[in-house]
Amino acid sequence: MNAKPPPVANRILGIDPGSRVTGYGVIDVMGANISYVASGCIRTADGALEQRLAQIYAGLSEIVGLHRPNAVAIERVFMAKNPDSALKLGQARGAALVCMANHGLSLAEYAARQIKQSVTGQGGADKAQVQHMVTAVLNLSATPQADAADALAIALTHAYSANGLLTTSSRGRRRSTGRWRL
Amino acid sequence: MNAKPPPVANRILGIDPGSRVTGYGVIDVMGANISYVASGCIRTADGALEQRLAQIYAGLSEIVGLHRPNAVAIERVFMAKNPDSALKLGQARGAALVCMANHGLSLAEYAARQIKQSVTGQGGADKAQVQHMVTAVLNLSATPQADAADALAIALTHAYSANGLLTTSSRGRRRSTGRWRL
Repeated sequence: MNAKPPPVANRILGIDPGSRVTGYGVIDVMGANISYVASGCIRTADGALEQRLAQIYAGLSEIVGLHRPNAVAIERVFMAKNPDSALKLGQARGAALVCMANHGLSLAEYAARQIKQSVTGQGGADKAQVQHMVTAVLNLSATPQADAADALAIALTHAYSANGLLTTSSRGRRRSTGRWRL
Repeated sequence: MNAKPPPVANRILGIDPGSRVTGYGVIDVMGANISYVASGCIRTADGALEQRLAQIYAGLSEIVGLHRPNAVAIERVFMAKNPDSALKLGQARGAALVCMANHGLSLAEYAARQIKQSVTGQGGADKAQVQHMVTAVLNLSATPQADAADALAIALTHAYSANGLLTTSSRGRRRSTGRWRL
Protein backbone atom coordinates (compact mmCIF):
# COMPACT_ATOMS: atom_id res chain seq x y z
CA MET A 1 0.00 0.00 0.00
CA ASN A 2 3.00 2.25 0.50
CA ALA A 3 4.57 1.29 -2.82
CA LYS A 4 6.14 4.35 -4.40
CA PRO A 5 5.20 5.21 -7.95
CA PRO A 6 8.02 4.52 -10.39
CA PRO A 7 10.30 7.50 -10.94
CA VAL A 8 9.40 9.60 -13.95
CA ALA A 9 12.11 10.87 -16.25
CA ASN A 10 12.13 14.59 -16.78
CA ARG A 11 13.56 15.68 -20.05
CA ILE A 12 15.33 19.03 -20.24
CA LEU A 13 16.18 20.87 -23.43
CA GLY A 14 18.97 23.43 -23.18
CA ILE A 15 19.28 26.03 -25.94
CA ASP A 16 22.16 28.36 -26.83
CA PRO A 17 20.75 30.60 -29.60
CA GLY A 18 22.91 32.49 -32.05
CA SER A 19 22.39 34.16 -35.41
CA ARG A 20 24.72 31.69 -37.16
CA VAL A 21 24.81 28.66 -34.83
CA THR A 22 22.20 27.58 -32.29
CA GLY A 23 23.35 24.83 -29.95
CA TYR A 24 20.92 22.41 -28.32
CA GLY A 25 21.27 19.66 -25.74
CA VAL A 26 18.75 17.22 -24.30
CA ILE A 27 19.18 15.32 -21.03
CA ASP A 28 16.98 13.06 -18.94
CA VAL A 29 16.78 13.37 -15.16
CA MET A 30 15.44 10.41 -13.20
CA GLY A 31 15.93 10.71 -9.46
CA ALA A 32 19.60 11.47 -8.97
CA ASN A 33 20.53 10.09 -12.37
CA ILE A 34 21.17 12.32 -15.31
CA SER A 35 21.61 10.84 -18.74
CA TYR A 36 22.48 12.22 -22.14
CA VAL A 37 19.82 12.08 -24.85
CA ALA A 38 20.98 14.24 -27.75
CA SER A 39 22.85 17.38 -28.69
CA GLY A 40 23.95 19.26 -31.74
CA CYS A 41 23.86 22.53 -33.63
CA ILE A 42 21.45 24.22 -35.98
CA ARG A 43 23.54 26.13 -38.51
CA THR A 44 21.76 28.75 -40.56
CA ALA A 45 22.60 29.05 -44.23
CA ASP A 46 23.36 32.35 -45.91
CA GLY A 47 20.24 34.13 -47.02
CA ALA A 48 17.56 36.57 -45.99
CA LEU A 49 17.34 37.29 -42.26
CA GLU A 50 13.78 36.02 -41.89
CA GLN A 51 14.71 32.77 -43.65
CA ARG A 52 17.62 32.22 -41.26
CA LEU A 53 15.35 32.86 -38.28
CA ALA A 54 12.82 30.43 -39.78
CA GLN A 55 15.60 27.79 -39.92
CA ILE A 56 16.20 28.23 -36.18
CA TYR A 57 12.46 27.96 -35.54
CA ALA A 58 12.05 24.90 -37.78
CA GLY A 59 15.15 23.18 -36.37
CA LEU A 60 14.03 23.66 -32.78
CA SER A 61 10.47 22.59 -33.67
CA GLU A 62 11.90 19.35 -35.05
CA ILE A 63 13.95 18.78 -31.88
CA VAL A 64 10.93 19.44 -29.64
CA GLY A 65 8.78 17.09 -31.75
CA LEU A 66 11.44 14.39 -31.67
CA HIS A 67 12.51 14.56 -28.02
CA ARG A 68 9.40 15.99 -26.31
CA PRO A 69 11.11 17.89 -23.47
CA ASN A 70 9.16 18.81 -20.31
CA ALA A 71 11.36 21.79 -19.55
CA VAL A 72 13.49 24.24 -21.47
CA ALA A 73 16.42 26.31 -20.24
CA ILE A 74 18.30 29.15 -21.88
CA GLU A 75 21.15 31.47 -20.96
CA ARG A 76 20.09 34.86 -19.63
CA VAL A 77 21.71 37.80 -21.39
CA PHE A 78 22.91 40.32 -18.83
CA MET A 79 24.85 42.72 -20.95
CA ALA A 80 25.47 42.27 -24.61
CA LYS A 81 28.79 43.46 -25.98
CA ASN A 82 27.48 46.08 -28.39
CA PRO A 83 24.15 47.16 -29.91
CA ASP A 84 24.76 45.44 -33.24
CA SER A 85 25.57 42.03 -31.77
CA ALA A 86 22.75 42.46 -29.22
CA LEU A 87 20.25 43.01 -32.06
CA LYS A 88 21.47 39.88 -33.89
CA LEU A 89 21.45 37.79 -30.73
CA GLY A 90 18.01 39.20 -29.84
CA GLN A 91 16.57 38.17 -33.20
CA ALA A 92 17.88 34.61 -32.84
CA ARG A 93 16.59 34.47 -29.24
CA GLY A 94 13.21 35.81 -30.40
CA ALA A 95 12.90 33.02 -32.99
CA ALA A 96 13.93 30.37 -30.43
CA LEU A 97 11.72 31.67 -27.61
CA VAL A 98 8.61 32.08 -29.74
CA CYS A 99 9.14 28.53 -30.99
CA MET A 100 9.17 27.21 -27.40
CA ALA A 101 6.08 29.26 -26.46
CA ASN A 102 4.25 28.05 -29.57
CA HIS A 103 4.97 24.49 -28.39
CA GLY A 104 3.50 25.27 -24.97
CA LEU A 105 6.88 25.21 -23.23
CA SER A 106 7.93 27.80 -20.66
CA LEU A 107 11.52 28.71 -20.04
CA ALA A 108 13.98 28.95 -17.19
CA GLU A 109 16.85 31.39 -17.62
CA TYR A 110 20.30 31.16 -16.04
CA ALA A 111 23.16 33.61 -16.07
CA ALA A 112 26.36 32.56 -17.86
CA ARG A 113 28.34 32.70 -14.60
CA GLN A 114 25.79 30.50 -12.87
CA ILE A 115 25.95 27.93 -15.67
CA LYS A 116 29.75 27.76 -15.50
CA GLN A 117 29.69 27.59 -11.70
CA SER A 118 27.05 24.89 -11.78
CA VAL A 119 28.85 22.66 -14.28
CA THR A 120 32.54 23.27 -13.54
CA GLY A 121 32.48 24.69 -10.00
CA GLN A 122 34.04 27.92 -11.32
CA GLY A 123 32.02 30.93 -12.44
CA GLY A 124 34.90 32.11 -14.60
CA ALA A 125 35.48 28.80 -16.40
CA ASP A 126 36.32 28.93 -20.11
CA LYS A 127 34.59 27.08 -22.93
CA ALA A 128 37.10 24.21 -22.91
CA GLN A 129 36.45 23.57 -19.20
CA VAL A 130 32.70 23.53 -19.82
CA GLN A 131 33.16 21.08 -22.70
CA HIS A 132 35.39 18.90 -20.55
CA MET A 133 32.99 18.75 -17.60
CA VAL A 134 29.89 18.19 -19.75
CA THR A 135 31.71 15.30 -21.44
CA ALA A 136 32.71 13.84 -18.08
CA VAL A 137 29.39 14.31 -16.23
CA LEU A 138 27.35 12.85 -19.07
CA ASN A 139 29.90 10.13 -19.75
CA LEU A 140 30.15 10.98 -23.42
CA SER A 141 32.52 9.14 -25.73
CA ALA A 142 33.45 12.33 -27.59
CA THR A 143 33.57 16.03 -26.71
CA PRO A 144 30.54 17.90 -28.09
CA GLN A 145 31.04 20.97 -30.27
CA ALA A 146 31.27 24.15 -28.13
CA ASP A 147 27.73 25.44 -28.79
CA ALA A 148 26.22 21.98 -28.16
CA ALA A 149 28.30 21.67 -24.95
CA ASP A 150 27.03 25.09 -23.81
CA ALA A 151 23.45 23.96 -24.42
CA LEU A 152 24.04 20.75 -22.46
CA ALA A 153 25.60 22.84 -19.65
CA ILE A 154 22.44 25.00 -19.55
CA ALA A 155 20.27 21.88 -19.34
CA LEU A 156 22.50 20.49 -16.55
CA THR A 157 22.24 23.79 -14.66
CA HIS A 158 18.47 23.48 -14.75
CA ALA A 159 18.68 19.90 -13.48
CA TYR A 160 20.93 21.03 -10.60
CA SER A 161 18.96 24.18 -9.83
CA ALA A 162 16.63 24.92 -6.93
CA ASN A 163 13.74 24.78 -9.36
CA GLY A 164 15.18 21.99 -11.42
CA LEU A 165 13.90 18.49 -11.68
CA LEU A 166 16.11 16.45 -9.37
CA THR A 167 13.99 14.60 -6.83
CA THR A 168 14.18 15.11 -3.07
CA SER A 169 16.57 12.22 -2.65
CA SER A 170 19.08 13.90 -4.89
CA ARG A 171 18.83 17.41 -3.50
CA GLY A 172 22.24 17.05 -1.90
CA ARG A 173 23.73 17.46 -5.33
CA ARG A 174 22.29 20.89 -5.88
CA ARG A 175 25.00 23.39 -6.52
CA SER A 176 23.37 26.38 -8.13
CA THR A 177 20.92 29.04 -7.09
CA GLY A 178 18.88 28.93 -10.26
CA ARG A 179 15.58 30.69 -10.15
CA TRP A 180 12.78 30.83 -12.61
CA ARG A 181 12.37 33.97 -14.59
CA LEU A 182 14.19 36.55 -12.51
CA MET B 1 -8.19 41.39 -78.50
CA ASN B 2 -5.99 44.03 -76.92
CA ALA B 3 -8.15 44.36 -73.85
CA LYS B 4 -5.94 44.82 -70.81
CA PRO B 5 -6.41 42.50 -67.87
CA PRO B 6 -8.06 44.24 -64.93
CA PRO B 7 -5.55 45.80 -62.50
CA VAL B 8 -4.68 43.58 -59.57
CA ALA B 9 -4.52 45.03 -56.09
CA ASN B 10 -1.30 44.42 -54.25
CA ARG B 11 -1.64 44.37 -50.54
CA ILE B 12 1.27 45.54 -48.40
CA LEU B 13 1.67 44.91 -44.69
CA GLY B 14 3.97 47.29 -42.82
CA ILE B 15 5.24 46.22 -39.40
CA ASP B 16 6.87 48.27 -36.64
CA PRO B 17 7.91 45.67 -34.02
CA GLY B 18 8.57 46.51 -30.39
CA SER B 19 8.81 44.56 -27.16
CA ARG B 20 5.72 46.29 -25.74
CA VAL B 21 3.84 47.58 -28.80
CA THR B 22 4.01 46.28 -32.35
CA GLY B 23 2.33 48.53 -34.91
CA TYR B 24 0.91 47.20 -38.15
CA GLY B 25 -0.63 48.81 -41.21
CA VAL B 26 -2.16 47.31 -44.33
CA ILE B 27 -2.66 49.18 -47.63
CA ASP B 28 -3.80 48.22 -51.12
CA VAL B 29 -2.01 49.45 -54.22
CA MET B 30 -3.88 49.31 -57.51
CA GLY B 31 -2.16 51.15 -60.33
CA ALA B 32 -1.50 54.63 -59.01
CA ASN B 33 -4.16 54.33 -56.32
CA ILE B 34 -3.27 53.54 -52.75
CA SER B 35 -6.01 52.77 -50.28
CA TYR B 36 -6.14 52.11 -46.57
CA VAL B 37 -7.18 48.63 -45.43
CA ALA B 38 -6.39 48.35 -41.73
CA SER B 39 -3.98 49.38 -38.99
CA GLY B 40 -3.51 48.99 -35.27
CA CYS B 41 -1.24 47.84 -32.50
CA ILE B 42 -0.47 44.53 -30.85
CA ARG B 43 0.15 45.28 -27.19
CA THR B 44 1.87 42.57 -25.18
CA ALA B 45 0.65 41.91 -21.68
CA ASP B 46 2.95 41.61 -18.70
CA GLY B 47 4.33 38.13 -18.33
CA ALA B 48 7.14 35.82 -19.31
CA LEU B 49 9.27 36.97 -22.23
CA GLU B 50 8.47 33.99 -24.42
CA GLN B 51 4.74 34.50 -23.85
CA ARG B 52 5.00 38.14 -24.89
CA LEU B 53 6.89 37.14 -28.03
CA ALA B 54 4.23 34.51 -28.72
CA GLN B 55 1.58 37.28 -28.51
CA ILE B 56 3.42 39.22 -31.22
CA TYR B 57 3.65 36.06 -33.34
CA ALA B 58 -0.02 35.15 -32.81
CA GLY B 59 -1.22 38.72 -33.42
CA LEU B 60 0.70 39.02 -36.68
CA SER B 61 -0.43 35.53 -37.74
CA GLU B 62 -4.03 36.65 -37.28
CA ILE B 63 -3.43 39.82 -39.32
CA VAL B 64 -1.76 37.83 -42.13
CA GLY B 65 -4.62 35.31 -42.12
CA LEU B 66 -7.24 38.07 -42.17
CA HIS B 67 -5.71 40.43 -44.73
CA ARG B 68 -3.55 38.09 -46.84
CA PRO B 69 -0.79 40.56 -47.80
CA ASN B 70 1.40 39.89 -50.87
CA ALA B 71 4.31 41.89 -49.49
CA VAL B 72 5.68 42.83 -46.10
CA ALA B 73 7.90 45.78 -45.19
CA ILE B 74 9.75 46.55 -41.97
CA GLU B 75 12.08 49.26 -40.72
CA ARG B 76 15.76 48.45 -40.97
CA VAL B 77 17.68 48.91 -37.73
CA PHE B 78 20.93 50.74 -38.43
CA MET B 79 22.17 51.44 -34.98
CA ALA B 80 20.30 50.67 -31.82
CA LYS B 81 20.67 53.05 -28.90
CA ASN B 82 22.20 50.64 -26.41
CA PRO B 83 22.79 46.90 -26.05
CA ASP B 84 19.85 46.35 -23.69
CA SER B 85 17.26 48.02 -25.91
CA ALA B 86 18.84 46.37 -28.98
CA LEU B 87 18.37 42.94 -27.40
CA LYS B 88 14.70 43.67 -26.59
CA LEU B 89 14.03 45.09 -30.05
CA GLY B 90 15.86 42.14 -31.61
CA GLN B 91 13.70 39.64 -29.76
CA ALA B 92 10.49 41.36 -30.93
CA ARG B 93 11.85 41.58 -34.48
CA GLY B 94 12.82 37.89 -34.33
CA ALA B 95 9.27 36.90 -33.37
CA ALA B 96 7.79 39.11 -36.11
CA LEU B 97 10.22 38.03 -38.84
CA VAL B 98 9.94 34.31 -38.13
CA CYS B 99 6.16 34.70 -38.25
CA MET B 100 6.35 36.25 -41.73
CA ALA B 101 8.78 33.58 -42.96
CA ASN B 102 6.55 30.82 -41.55
CA HIS B 103 3.71 32.31 -43.61
CA GLY B 104 5.86 32.21 -46.74
CA LEU B 105 6.28 35.98 -46.89
CA SER B 106 9.59 37.66 -47.62
CA LEU B 107 10.47 41.10 -46.37
CA ALA B 108 11.66 44.43 -47.69
CA GLU B 109 13.57 46.63 -45.24
CA TYR B 110 13.77 50.41 -45.30
CA ALA B 111 15.85 52.75 -43.19
CA ALA B 112 13.99 55.10 -40.84
CA ARG B 113 15.29 58.14 -42.68
CA GLN B 114 14.10 56.75 -46.00
CA ILE B 115 10.62 56.08 -44.59
CA LYS B 116 10.32 59.65 -43.28
CA GLN B 117 11.67 61.08 -46.54
CA SER B 118 9.32 58.93 -48.57
CA VAL B 119 6.18 59.85 -46.61
CA THR B 120 6.83 63.45 -45.53
CA GLY B 121 9.52 64.62 -47.95
CA GLN B 122 11.88 65.18 -45.00
CA GLY B 123 14.31 62.55 -43.72
CA GLY B 124 14.38 64.22 -40.32
CA ALA B 125 10.60 64.42 -39.86
CA ASP B 126 9.21 63.75 -36.38
CA LYS B 127 6.49 61.26 -35.41
CA ALA B 128 3.74 63.88 -35.53
CA GLN B 129 4.64 64.81 -39.13
CA VAL B 130 4.58 61.12 -40.13
CA GLN B 131 1.17 60.71 -38.47
CA HIS B 132 -0.11 63.85 -40.22
CA MET B 133 1.06 62.79 -43.69
CA VAL B 134 -0.14 59.18 -43.33
CA THR B 135 -3.55 60.51 -42.32
CA ALA B 136 -3.63 62.90 -45.29
CA VAL B 137 -2.28 60.51 -47.95
CA LEU B 138 -4.62 57.70 -46.96
CA ASN B 139 -7.54 60.09 -46.42
CA LEU B 140 -8.20 58.79 -42.94
CA SER B 141 -10.94 60.25 -40.77
CA ALA B 142 -8.79 60.05 -37.63
CA THR B 143 -5.07 60.10 -36.90
CA PRO B 144 -3.72 56.59 -36.24
CA GLN B 145 -1.78 55.88 -33.05
CA ALA B 146 1.96 56.57 -33.55
CA ASP B 147 3.09 52.93 -33.91
CA ALA B 148 0.26 52.17 -36.34
CA ALA B 149 1.11 55.35 -38.31
CA ASP B 150 4.77 54.26 -38.47
CA ALA B 151 3.69 50.85 -39.80
CA LEU B 152 1.47 52.50 -42.44
CA ALA B 153 4.42 54.76 -43.36
CA ILE B 154 6.61 51.68 -43.85
CA ALA B 155 3.95 50.12 -46.10
CA LEU B 156 3.64 53.38 -48.07
CA THR B 157 7.42 53.51 -48.49
CA HIS B 158 7.33 50.06 -50.02
CA ALA B 159 4.53 51.14 -52.37
CA TYR B 160 6.57 54.19 -53.46
CA SER B 161 9.89 52.35 -53.68
CA ALA B 162 11.83 51.21 -56.72
CA ASN B 163 10.89 47.65 -55.88
CA GLY B 164 7.43 48.48 -54.68
CA LEU B 165 4.21 47.56 -56.32
CA LEU B 166 3.10 50.70 -58.15
CA THR B 167 2.53 49.92 -61.82
CA THR B 168 4.47 51.47 -64.69
CA SER B 169 1.85 54.17 -65.17
CA SER B 170 2.41 55.42 -61.64
CA ARG B 171 6.20 55.31 -61.60
CA GLY B 172 6.36 59.08 -61.72
CA ARG B 173 5.30 59.10 -58.09
CA ARG B 174 8.33 57.20 -56.90
CA ARG B 175 10.21 59.19 -54.35
CA SER B 176 12.41 56.74 -52.50
CA THR B 177 15.38 54.59 -53.31
CA GLY B 178 14.13 51.50 -51.55
CA ARG B 179 16.03 48.33 -52.18
CA TRP B 180 15.37 44.78 -51.20
CA ARG B 181 17.50 43.28 -48.51
CA LEU B 182 20.59 45.44 -48.52
